[in-house]
Amino acid sequence: MADVKVLGFWASPFVLRARIALHLKSVNYEYVEEDLESKSDLLLKSNPVFKQVPVLLHGGNSISESLIIVQYIDEVWSSAAPSILPSDPYERAVSRFWAAYVDDKWSNALRARLVAEGEEAKKATLAQVEEGLALFEEEYGKLRKGKPFFGGDQIGYLDIVIGCILAWVQVIEKFSEMKLIDEAKTPGLFQWADSFCSHEAVKDVLPDVEALAQYGLKVRAKFLNAKPTPQ
Amino acid sequence: MADVKVLGFWASPFVLRARIALHLKSVNYEYVEEDLESKSDLLLKSNPVFKQVPVLLHGGNSISESLIIVQYIDEVWSSAAPSILPSDPYERAVSRFWAAYVDDKWSNALRARLVAEGEEAKKATLAQVEEGLALFEEEYGKLRKGKPFFGGDQIGYLDIVIGCILAWVQVIEKFSEMKLIDEAKTPGLFQWADSFCSHEAVKDVLPDVEALAQYGLKVRAKFLNAKPTPQ
Repeated sequence: MADVKVLGFWASPFVLRARIALHLKSVNYEYVEEDLESKSDLLLKSNPVFKQVPVLLHGGNSISESLIIVQYIDEVWSSAAPSILPSDPYERAVSRFWAAYVDDKWSNALRARLVAEGEEAKKATLAQVEEGLALFEEEYGKLRKGKPFFGGDQIGYLDIVIGCILAWVQVIEKFSEMKLIDEAKTPGLFQWADSFCSHEAVKDVLPDVEALAQYGLKVRAKFLNAKPTPQ
Repeated sequence: MADVKVLGFWASPFVLRARIALHLKSVNYEYVEEDLESKSDLLLKSNPVFKQVPVLLHGGNSISESLIIVQYIDEVWSSAAPSILPSDPYERAVSRFWAAYVDDKWSNALRARLVAEGEEAKKATLAQVEEGLALFEEEYGKLRKGKPFFGGDQIGYLDIVIGCILAWVQVIEKFSEMKLIDEAKTPGLFQWADSFCSHEAVKDVLPDVEALAQYGLKVRAKFLNAKPTPQ
């Protein structure tokens, strides 16, 4: 058994975070694809509370929740450059703040746009997605200090947190028939997205956008079918 | 101007987390009570994204989100004993996992019970609250190793995260006319809650449960009034 194992699902941006953090630290690991319709006993045993991927298995321990996994990887392989979290406590807090914004608010807006019905709902949810991107554009300007990444010269925490959702942004662009990240509206993010997606630690694990869009249509159909009929 | 300031609200368990972390580190700070119906310009400027308390102001910087604030305090005043987060990466991940469970799931169940209408909804939401408490009881048994706190001899991250919600648990006990944490069902938590609430860093800032219950009734009434009438 490999000492490090990731239980994942190809379309999950959260799984991608764990994998990219491991790549950055040059940690060898075994990747195990889960069938989310029929979860493995290993997954259910490793994450009995949320029963979700990703799970990182390391030396007999299991770690869940993508942000926690990324921090764990940064702390365990602390001597392996680069450091993922900034070293300054305030900069760490800023990174964690935007990560919380992404996971508690912005990614919900993306999901809401995916399953939105009717022009009005699509417009409203898309506006929330764009609002987040405008905030990231502003923050990118502040944090990168002329360097390619939020983390400076190297991919850092916030790069991983936002970057792993880029493929889903492209799916929403496709469904909305418009660009959300482009040279005119978000010049910083446009350049950053290109640097992120072509990075050695990233490029080989990014999902295919066309396949992701097909999967998105399935998620949408499943959600709309499960929705209770209005009384 | 004090170097350290907390913008807070007396009934917020999240504000309590920031204050108790500062007390543990013996940091002097100014506490500023916010009127949440009419938020101060300082709050809106310091936390423009979420516009929520707590906000920690320190040396010209503002930090939001209670879990991030507690970690920031632990990192900035790292030489001031005790350490709030465990030092072992896996133990840190476990603490962070339960903190995520509390904030993403369990505290929502408490809130849902507060505003639940009808016996069935009250029973279902209360069951979720109890499910969380049973998990904490089990985890407490594993983590404390015969010592009084989740953090061992000293109050740690998980003690702060769960402990600050104890007064709201007491409010729900009052509304449900039953004990949720007691010697028979949750003997570990029962003893822990007593140690936590009587700790020097905690006892003077715990809200009065009777006042909190009155506030809870207002929150409930406001929520039910705002609920759309069924079509």
